[in-house]
Amino acid sequence: MNTIEVCLTHELIHHHELKGKIVVVTDVFRATSCIVSGLAKGVKAIKPVIEVEECLELQKQGYLAGGERHAQMIEGFDLDNSPFSYMETRSMGQKVAMTTTNGTLTINKSKEADEILAASFSNLSATASYLKNKGKDVLIVCAGWKGRPGLEDVLFGGALTLAMSDSHETEGDSTFLATAAYETAQSDLLSYLQRASHLKRLKKLGGKDIPYCLEIDLFDVVVKLNEESELVLAS
Amino acid sequence: MNTIEVCLTHELIHHHELKGKIVVVTDVFRATSCIVSGLAKGVKAIKPVIEVEECLELQKQGYLAGGERHAQMIEGFDLDNSPFSYMETRSMGQKVAMTTTNGTLTINKSKEADEILAASFSNLSATASYLKNKGKDVLIVCAGWKGRPGLEDVLFGGALTLAMSDSHETEGDSTFLATAAYETAQSDLLSYLQRASHLKRLKKLGGKDIPYCLEIDLFDVVVKLNEESELVLAS
Repeated sequence: MNTIEVCLTHELIHHHELKGKIVVVTDVFRATSCIVSGLAKGVKAIKPVIEVEECLELQKQGYLAGGERHAQMIEGFDLDNSPFSYMETRSMGQKVAMTTTNGTLTINKSKEADEILAASFSNLSATASYLKNKGKDVLIVCAGWKGRPGLEDVLFGGALTLAMSDSHETEGDSTFLATAAYETAQSDLLSYLQRASHLKRLKKLGGKDIPYCLEIDLFDVVVKLNEESELVLAS
Repeated sequence: MNTIEVCLTHELIHHHELKGKIVVVTDVFRATSCIVSGLAKGVKAIKPVIEVEECLELQKQGYLAGGERHAQMIEGFDLDNSPFSYMETRSMGQKVAMTTTNGTLTINKSKEADEILAASFSNLSATASYLKNKGKDVLIVCAGWKGRPGLEDVLFGGALTLAMSDSHETEGDSTFLATAAYETAQSDLLSYLQRASHLKRLKKLGGKDIPYCLEIDLFDVVVKLNEESELVLAS
């Protein structure tokens, strides 16, 4: 039986062997929610990058520049980090160069894996089906918040692990914590998360994003990193 | 109101300001369970050190050498890492130099705190009372397993946080995860932990230690690091 494991923050990723595995990166608030929503609605590709300057460079080559620093819009950028921006008409058919504090870092740290997916609650079941068909070991890496575990990402890790329980065996104490948390939280994710440390800050920046990012199975799409290091829909 | 927070592994301790706080180090399997039991029963002091060689050097000065590497007894040592060894008659009145893979490392990383306690389920309530009287912010640092979070330590973090809820406000997503896990587990800690990743290995090494380490409030003692960097009973 294949295994599935949750890594609570990208700062702990060095404890995991990535070769031979599929890594699922999640940054629920909000990078991977933006990515899944945008690609599902018609964005052509999203290139995750570390530096703001790299985004601005790619902007000159025709990309839209998107992302945040410390949950703030960046000067000169086209898109912020709200999933709704990624679903606007002007984004359709475009490529986006995206920088985020946590999500992009996590994707870049996962490069040794056989395959990298980006996922969020919005494509939970589609991602689970895809992984079951692949028949490989899975590591879910939570982007977290400035290197610390973030409850929303851990809950997604638990949700995906539980969705895979008929094909993948759970490994590790962190995975156990994640599934236990999701089992408690699943009846009302938003209420559960209202106790999370940085939710107050995020609320100030736009109330509708948070409940949106917690909606399950809005899209029947799978997002993967292609050979050009761009996130695209998996065929 | 003062705050209380759980850090899931010593590898994430750099995210926390330690100055002005009391750090509670826990390594339930088994360093802090050994330390609390030994001191409660009459061991004079326990000096936590990183290296095996340092233990052997202190042994020449009259200390007993105790501890483990990869959960194995070390050649030339007097004590292994079973709490029962620390409660034997030959340990009474003695000083012990102790090395452990995780617990000692964690204590050494906590040096900037105002005060460092070592605690385990065996002195949960005594530790909580002491902390309430001190009126300072508290950080519980889980030793974990080779840098990864260990479920038993996280559960203790949750238990201590809940025991302090009338005097200390909970901070951080990790703390929330810990208290949620303990709330689920508390009716039967052993069964809950039997699903933990490394319990199988620990079982092989001595079955009676594990249930012992999960017993709550065996001792009404508090253990703190003194100015000579030795763990002693707090007066």
